[in-house]
Amino acid sequence: MSSLKNKPQTLKGFRDFLPEEMRIRNAVVTKIKEVFESFGFEPLETPSLEYADTLLGKYGEEADRLVYKFKDRGGREVAMPYDLTVPTAKLLAIYQNKINFPFKRYQIQRVWRAEKPQKGRLREFLQCDVDIFGSMSPLADAEIIIITAVSLQKLGFKDFYIKLNNRQILFDLLKQINITKEEETLSVIRIIDKLEKKPKVEVEKELIQKKLEKEKVEKLFEIINAASPNQSLTEIFSACEAAGIEKKFLRFDPTLARGLDYYSGPIFEAVVEKPKIGSIAGGGRYDFLIKKLGGPDIPATGISFGIERICEALIENKLIETAKTKTKVLVTIFSPETLGESISLASKLRSSGICTDLYPDPEAKLDKQLKYADRKGIPYCAILGPEEIAAGKVTLKNMKTGEQKSLPVGEITKELKNGGTKELKN
Amino acid sequence: MSSLKNKPQTLKGFRDFLPEEMRIRNAVVTKIKEVFESFGFEPLETPSLEYADTLLGKYGEEADRLVYKFKDRGGREVAMPYDLTVPTAKLLAIYQNKINFPFKRYQIQRVWRAEKPQKGRLREFLQCDVDIFGSMSPLADAEIIIITAVSLQKLGFKDFYIKLNNRQILFDLLKQINITKEEETLSVIRIIDKLEKKPKVEVEKELIQKKLEKEKVEKLFEIINAASPNQSLTEIFSACEAAGIEKKFLRFDPTLARGLDYYSGPIFEAVVEKPKIGSIAGGGRYDFLIKKLGGPDIPATGISFGIERICEALIENKLIETAKTKTKVLVTIFSPETLGESISLASKLRSSGICTDLYPDPEAKLDKQLKYADRKGIPYCAILGPEEIAAGKVTLKNMKTGEQKSLPVGEITKELKNGGTKELKN
Repeated sequence: MSSLKNKPQTLKGFRDFLPEEMRIRNAVVTKIKEVFESFGFEPLETPSLEYADTLLGKYGEEADRLVYKFKDRGGREVAMPYDLTVPTAKLLAIYQNKINFPFKRYQIQRVWRAEKPQKGRLREFLQCDVDIFGSMSPLADAEIIIITAVSLQKLGFKDFYIKLNNRQILFDLLKQINITKEEETLSVIRIIDKLEKKPKVEVEKELIQKKLEKEKVEKLFEIINAASPNQSLTEIFSACEAAGIEKKFLRFDPTLARGLDYYSGPIFEAVVEKPKIGSIAGGGRYDFLIKKLGGPDIPATGISFGIERICEALIENKLIETAKTKTKVLVTIFSPETLGESISLASKLRSSGICTDLYPDPEAKLDKQLKYADRKGIPYCAILGPEEIAAGKVTLKNMKTGEQKSLPVGEITKELKNGGTKELKN
Repeated sequence: MSSLKNKPQTLKGFRDFLPEEMRIRNAVVTKIKEVFESFGFEPLETPSLEYADTLLGKYGEEADRLVYKFKDRGGREVAMPYDLTVPTAKLLAIYQNKINFPFKRYQIQRVWRAEKPQKGRLREFLQCDVDIFGSMSPLADAEIIIITAVSLQKLGFKDFYIKLNNRQILFDLLKQINITKEEETLSVIRIIDKLEKKPKVEVEKELIQKKLEKEKVEKLFEIINAASPNQSLTEIFSACEAAGIEKKFLRFDPTLARGLDYYSGPIFEAVVEKPKIGSIAGGGRYDFLIKKLGGPDIPATGISFGIERICEALIENKLIETAKTKTKVLVTIFSPETLGESISLASKLRSSGICTDLYPDPEAKLDKQLKYADRKGIPYCAILGPEEIAAGKVTLKNMKTGEQKSLPVGEITKELKNGGTKELKN
């Protein structure tokens, strides 16, 4: 580590985001926020450090071990949020009299988990939660499913579906094979949850290893496969239909279990089939969690989007505009004498809404400036030499085709707006 | 602290942002980003944890004491960024061959400083930096000043000005009174910097206490007041003029010193006169800092915006849209039987771009739903009872005036778009 001073590096599990990556991330987050706000959800943010007491002991020892915690200079035990649900429970406890319930909020922030690096998992990632606090109605669950379906469509995904189930269905099925104790029920649910990743035989084997008799296991799969949606799921399906969500986007899946113990009602998971990236959002109803986490006794339902996974999928499948930059044109500087004209042109373009770069050095050779535009992926360069200035024109060079045309200054804006939209999708 | 479990609280110096506050913050950040991107600046982000070696020992002991640092479970000494310049220096060092210089980037992220709480300062705040790396030209400084002036105008500030000076002018003036050693020069500059907050006599007194003879101090102020812009400042003023920045927004101020040692050329500070909130952005050229911080040997110039201060000023002076929510209408639910029609209306409104809330409980009384809309500041409620449904109409209630009108479903969108813009500025 003594070499660090000479060779700076980023911590494992943490990432630097260069402009190309940031632009995709920003586009995804902006799009998702737009959908959330169109549904009447409100933004919220909580700190990146909390009292350790607030964050620890909520999800068990395994989770606690992943929390970054330390003693600050004032001797306080502090910690960095592992998720956004616990800080929200804190916020709801503090501001419960100031908040209007039902409370629809979204929250997009970094969270930290000290996962083992060999898993290839990030230790810092963007959590994106959208939840409704204070409604027990299946309509609230339906709103979450509808917002998920609309978000995925707006992001450009075509072949996806949302799996739906209800923890109550699983509880009832397990009762039928005489599994009623909470601990055993949750332990079996955690194993059923693996059906997503493992073949059925292996899951069966694991259930048998966990002391379930072979006949019980067979019976269990038989009744799981024969299960049908309960009342709340039926209401959710109707609400989604009324909202115009196509049926192909929704699937009742009685094997959907979701790994986490705290789900108490409907559960859901969005799966993208093409590109084959699996689950990119998951959630459900968790009516008892907020109180358990230290918040008020209110029902809740919501979903988390995997932003990093969504970004990866969109890049890999060219579903997102991957143009190198929002900048439409570089205004070059012919010489120090013509600098004023170049600055003035850049200002005009900028104030008419065209993202415009101005080369920040009047001494640089034109060739160097054109190369700069090319490397940055800027589609046009504006050249303003003494001849152009005398004629009241600007030479516009298309960096892709090499084509050049001379235009009156006043027409440049129009040309860039047209040309720009032809070249770039956004 | 043992009571924390019962009474959750937020750490001192840290803030929870409820929707009202978030909306203003989001509006400011969105506006500023738009300006930055219109100037061809690119987004960048770095992690919230770095090797402590990367962050410490850069700005001296005083700053190091404010850094949150700890040992992670892997035994690594890690720390949370104190500013964004040091992480950027790291990033430039790692990716210098991947980045195209001159590199124009903006970066808006949380940073952490363990300031004493009695100062009333935040320990977690949003840092907003915009810089150009790799250009020595005064045109780069000018671009930073122009972007600042345009940003402040777009944010709605009317009476502001940007103070300009050049460290070289101060160095030259101090030479004239025989102050040439670096340490003494910087120490005198740090005292002159206090002219902003203290009367001149007190600053003079402090200079005399610091072993400067009375005659020298008098001479110093005499030559400061007689100073005129040097070559680089003259070029900056010309560039700003060519960009159409009004002269009243710029002031040469030879007493502007900026407290930090690392400035090497032009320095600037934006001051808002009305509302009287003082400096809201500050920066300058720092050609030797990036190398000193562990980055490559490249010149740099840039500015930092005080987002928290800007938000406060905008709220206090009603310069920002303080409407309670972006949501334009609440679609109410008359009864469980008419739920489908309400869901369908909400979907239509949402897909035509109107931010629409749907009350998430079909069992709630209409009165309760109207109160919910009122408390959230939603300007309209849509009521869809059996009569309305039979007639193919919707009753639209203006929550401010109480006025109600019945409209065909197809006209609701138009009405809300018009009504919405009349009621709310945005």
